[in-house]
Amino acid sequence: MRPATITLTTDFGVSDHYVGVMKGVIASINPQATVIDINHEVRPFNVAQGAFFVAQAYRYFPADTVHIAVVDPGVGTSRKPILVEAAGQRFVAPDNGLLSQVYEREPHIVRAIDAERFALKPTSLTFHGRDVFAPVGAWLSTGKESADFGEIVTKYVRLQATAPELLEPGHWRGRILNIDRFGNLVTSFPAALLQQPWTAIQITAGQLQIYSVHTAYASAAPGEPFAIAGSSDLVELSVNEGSAADLADVEIGDTVELILARPDEA
Amino acid sequence: MRPATITLTTDFGVSDHYVGVMKGVIASINPQATVIDINHEVRPFNVAQGAFFVAQAYRYFPADTVHIAVVDPGVGTSRKPILVEAAGQRFVAPDNGLLSQVYEREPHIVRAIDAERFALKPTSLTFHGRDVFAPVGAWLSTGKESADFGEIVTKYVRLQATAPELLEPGHWRGRILNIDRFGNLVTSFPAALLQQPWTAIQITAGQLQIYSVHTAYASAAPGEPFAIAGSSDLVELSVNEGSAADLADVEIGDTVELILARPDEA
Amino acid sequence: MRPATITLTTDFGVSDHYVGVMKGVIASINPQATVIDINHEVRPFNVAQGAFFVAQAYRYFPADTVHIAVVDPGVGTSRKPILVEAAGQRFVAPDNGLLSQVYEREPHIVRAIDAERFALKPTSLTFHGRDVFAPVGAWLSTGKESADFGEIVTKYVRLQATAPELLEPGHWRGRILNIDRFGNLVTSFPAALLQQPWTAIQITAGQLQIYSVHTAYASAAPGEPFAIAGSSDLVELSVNEGSAADLADVEIGDTVELILARPDEA
Repeated sequence: MRPATITLTTDFGVSDHYVGVMKGVIASINPQATVIDINHEVRPFNVAQGAFFVAQAYRYFPADTVHIAVVDPGVGTSRKPILVEAAGQRFVAPDNGLLSQVYEREPHIVRAIDAERFALKPTSLTFHGRDVFAPVGAWLSTGKESADFGEIVTKYVRLQATAPELLEPGHWRGRILNIDRFGNLVTSFPAALLQQPWTAIQITAGQLQIYSVHTAYASAAPGEPFAIAGSSDLVELSVNEGSAADLADVEIGDTVELILARPDEA
Repeated sequence: MRPATITLTTDFGVSDHYVGVMKGVIASINPQATVIDINHEVRPFNVAQGAFFVAQAYRYFPADTVHIAVVDPGVGTSRKPILVEAAGQRFVAPDNGLLSQVYEREPHIVRAIDAERFALKPTSLTFHGRDVFAPVGAWLSTGKESADFGEIVTKYVRLQATAPELLEPGHWRGRILNIDRFGNLVTSFPAALLQQPWTAIQITAGQLQIYSVHTAYASAAPGEPFAIAGSSDLVELSVNEGSAADLADVEIGDTVELILARPDEA
Repeated sequence: MRPATITLTTDFGVSDHYVGVMKGVIASINPQATVIDINHEVRPFNVAQGAFFVAQAYRYFPADTVHIAVVDPGVGTSRKPILVEAAGQRFVAPDNGLLSQVYEREPHIVRAIDAERFALKPTSLTFHGRDVFAPVGAWLSTGKESADFGEIVTKYVRLQATAPELLEPGHWRGRILNIDRFGNLVTSFPAALLQQPWTAIQITAGQLQIYSVHTAYASAAPGEPFAIAGSSDLVELSVNEGSAADLADVEIGDTVELILARPDEA
């Protein structure tokens, strides 16, 4: 039998016991589950960055995977825990927009979790990763029906959409969705933009101006800033053997502009 | 059959091969075991911080879990490896106080491990995590009896107790047990202290003075320092969207004072 | 049945979704495999450091383990993916020298991987960890024959050998193979060098001069720099409760010199 797969995406870091404890809770409920860390280094309370990671990761996981995502500045307040069914998988998270980029990509059903029934007792007001989301995810992974966990709701929180805004023909405004370990800036521009015919390109991100596109990092000269169709199917801004983030001096969420001159333009 | 669960708590970090190698040793002995990282970022040689993580984590793990803890400045000297049975689980660690907070919480039996029998050969003098603790933990997880590993001992190392000291009625002195990723200061004051009736509170940690208590992080104003009943059932000192650690300028192990004015006091 | 073991060594860090996604790809192909992280903190693009970690780790893993190693500055260029059989295990990596220290230690067979057959489609030009190495490793772990993946090749990339150079009798030049979390400098000098008879020793690494050898870290005085036979069977340069790397001010790859005065020298 295929073992259940559970993923974890949080801003808890790995320098405390928080993630280990969530895994202990899961192992206590479903010892057969395989737990895979997507990332625990979401910037503290950065729901938008967490939303990016969840949406980038789920597509590579087997059917029926349960994704637990916890970036939860509102823990202990009235924000609800939710269960989302999408793409043949299930997602458990606080209802604060953390699943927004899944909503953008997939038809989905959202349920408000009846946390009381599944939470560890006593339930803390400060660590629902351990007390609510881990047990709900673990019970889901045992094969329980989604309907057992709560009613379908039609109102839930969405962050601002990530689709770039067309300012005028050939000129888009997007945003920085992530800055990765290598200092690459992952933008919200679809990589497909680069595949249409164009004669010149200009991308502006903070202090960084980019005029060239490469298909491999190593094709660029050392120190050269360039755009590339990244592994997320989004345009990334990179510097070969350097950090685009350092040169641009931008933050996640900042805007980026992209201008393409078309062949039929004078 | 329920697979065996083994946890790891060390100060080895995750930027070298040390933790991966321990897991290779375990997989070679018990390939069916599920290995869960509690934390490898204990501050180097900080046995007291390691003791906190082990004691916070074990309660959330299934019966029969084997906990391997290695913060071991005395590796290669005469300090003994020990095996502790407590709370229906087993703990393997150097005898340097790393299990002190388990001793404080649970009735326990301590054995001196006959390391020679179970160690990898040749046995290094610098990496007992790989050569002694991983193989002992892995063999334990296969179901071996504790008595096979060594004799019960009655002398073993305990760190200073974490229980706060009552200086005068309503006035306690405790310590910082951990500073977490979010800059929260986890104190040794039981959260229950906050649940008794009081009319005013004052907590002093380094440069930080706290006069308010909240039940959720988000209930505090941005930048406001406050106390909260944390997820470890201990009083934590926090700053909403900020770092209490930065404001207080304290280290793990530093003292904290808490004064409660009672309703019946004039 | 013994579950398959797969290890991962990369420079992807753990602050993005890259490693989690590789594990999702593996779980989709071989959900029974146990995936163990050796290390994702290889310094970006530092193939030599990655080579050290892979070679230090494999010896502690069970027979038939599949090791996936990805430090890949040339991703998307003409560098080939290779499959190496050595020591009863298999290794998957870009052909850029990342397996050099395995070649130094073990008889080995190298195959050029027919990536087209096994890669995820579409195959990105920027993330072969996900699109090529993870699927190849996962398919290998299901028990597929190595010959299914590609033809044997006799030309493949090797980094400069790590064996120290004998400059004159009793005087060797070696290199720093790693700087670990504790600031220990792992040199390329075999620990066996310290076991031969000698009357005086001098080791020079950057600003650091060392004249003493200890067998345990704690045997040295606090702050004293010393040499020790490390857990990798290599000479390490350490400072008790301090960082040899900070004192020496060296980088991975820098040279180190070791001079031994023999008893029979006047």
